[in-house]
Amino acid sequence: MSVNPSSLLAALELGGTKTVVATGLPDGTILEEFRFPTTTPDETLDRALAWLEERGVPAAIGIGAFGPIRVNPASADHGCLLNTPKPGWSGFSLIGKIASAMPDVPVRLDTDVNVALWAEAALGAAKGASDAAYITIGTGIGAGILSGGNLVHGAMHPEFGHLKVPTAPGDDFGGVCPFHGNCLEGLASGPAILARWGKPAAELPADHPAWDVEAWYLAHGILALLAILSPTRIIVGGGVSQAAGLHGKISDLLKTVANGYFDKEMLETLVTPPALGQEAGIKGALLLAGGVGAR
Amino acid sequence: MSVNPSSLLAALELGGTKTVVATGLPDGTILEEFRFPTTTPDETLDRALAWLEERGVPAAIGIGAFGPIRVNPASADHGCLLNTPKPGWSGFSLIGKIASAMPDVPVRLDTDVNVALWAEAALGAAKGASDAAYITIGTGIGAGILSGGNLVHGAMHPEFGHLKVPTAPGDDFGGVCPFHGNCLEGLASGPAILARWGKPAAELPADHPAWDVEAWYLAHGILALLAILSPTRIIVGGGVSQAAGLHGKISDLLKTVANGYFDKEMLETLVTPPALGQEAGIKGALLLAGGVGAR
Repeated sequence: MSVNPSSLLAALELGGTKTVVATGLPDGTILEEFRFPTTTPDETLDRALAWLEERGVPAAIGIGAFGPIRVNPASADHGCLLNTPKPGWSGFSLIGKIASAMPDVPVRLDTDVNVALWAEAALGAAKGASDAAYITIGTGIGAGILSGGNLVHGAMHPEFGHLKVPTAPGDDFGGVCPFHGNCLEGLASGPAILARWGKPAAELPADHPAWDVEAWYLAHGILALLAILSPTRIIVGGGVSQAAGLHGKISDLLKTVANGYFDKEMLETLVTPPALGQEAGIKGALLLAGGVGAR
Repeated sequence: MSVNPSSLLAALELGGTKTVVATGLPDGTILEEFRFPTTTPDETLDRALAWLEERGVPAAIGIGAFGPIRVNPASADHGCLLNTPKPGWSGFSLIGKIASAMPDVPVRLDTDVNVALWAEAALGAAKGASDAAYITIGTGIGAGILSGGNLVHGAMHPEFGHLKVPTAPGDDFGGVCPFHGNCLEGLASGPAILARWGKPAAELPADHPAWDVEAWYLAHGILALLAILSPTRIIVGGGVSQAAGLHGKISDLLKTVANGYFDKEMLETLVTPPALGQEAGIKGALLLAGGVGAR
């Protein structure tokens, strides 16, 4: 493919364990991509920037990053990682580092979950939706949120994993969140599953009772999204979500919990797996770089 | 005050029990106002329209209405009341009725809670906030929501009262919601307080244990708003909210529940009573009519 160099875009997906860097086009097409483990801030960014520099100066760079990170461009610490348990990253200026290497390149930043949702809303499982969420369940639980066609940031950004939900029938597990014990993340994240059942999610068979408990908590978290945002599509992704049948269990339970309230037809199609798989984040960062919206 | 007739605006607040109609200016200034009980759809609207017609043709009319109501202008049933338990109102076309009386007047419609929040965000307790909510606690529980400076509608509109929260310590009350029993509305609305304690909220003294239970449920509902929207201001209003000390109790409990998570300074000032009292709805409808936003 012949690409006009002036329209070449760069994208960076900075995850807690892996980093992806890519070049591509405003429609989300990836031309080249490089994946490597996330280590220290300087080592990780030097590696990403060196790879990008070999490919020429991009028209813009879009970033999806783990958090907490300041995404409000009006803040003095825009693009800085905030108080994160990940060693060495608290206070690191991601945008400062990139701007010093590419001083004239516009930088567009959002959270990892928001860029993944942005891609799914433009090209994937939430295509055409103005109101949607992308929940990821892995080491933690987070959500990217789209309301009226706009990504939700608020004063900081959503911390979906830290809302509280009713205890599942018979569940006496206290939860693993260091702040809240039994918040959604404390009860339903990968580490919560490991602590409750003694095995990681990937080793629990589809008929294990763990999945009914997991579906209970996720259905109640999704009910809060429904009650607050009235979305038409909720994508449930992340490592833990890959268990066979989990989306169906969540959906069935949600219909039971809603008990005739909320639009029945909408509830039938509300909960879905991601369509773009592990490419959602980097494609979303590319769309962000190109200024192309979800709708 | 001399008013250019071409800038005179009309506002209608259609509540479940009372209706308010007013004339005023784009900055929310009310010139004349008329309040009367809500009865049947035709009787109520005829009365409102007759009062307005005596005051000349307005430049536009803004409406805040009880729901569920279709607020999406792109829907075929825009402005229609949906399936409501209020006798005679299901399927009534509020906008159709107004348009037939005032065929050339632009009509701008939102929910009662959204217009109240719109006024509080422009002129009152959420002034300057881009991300805020207005929770009303009365016969039911509802919320108007502002995200990134835009009122949240979603596919339908929020149904905040119907999310589920953890049971308060020692509370074995099953709730009064006909759909969900113990959703937030089922546990903390005016009828829930009456059913649980045998007395209406207005008759329970400030030191009654009812208010600790009430604060528990509201704090957990607000935690969900925090986790999903990252707002800076949550107004708690409506009849039940007028109990002395309730806002302080909610705020203290919220800090305990957040346990060091979320911004501490923000949590100090997050929960507040309304500033505009019973004028919020009609002022918000006037601002909506004038196309004046919250920020």
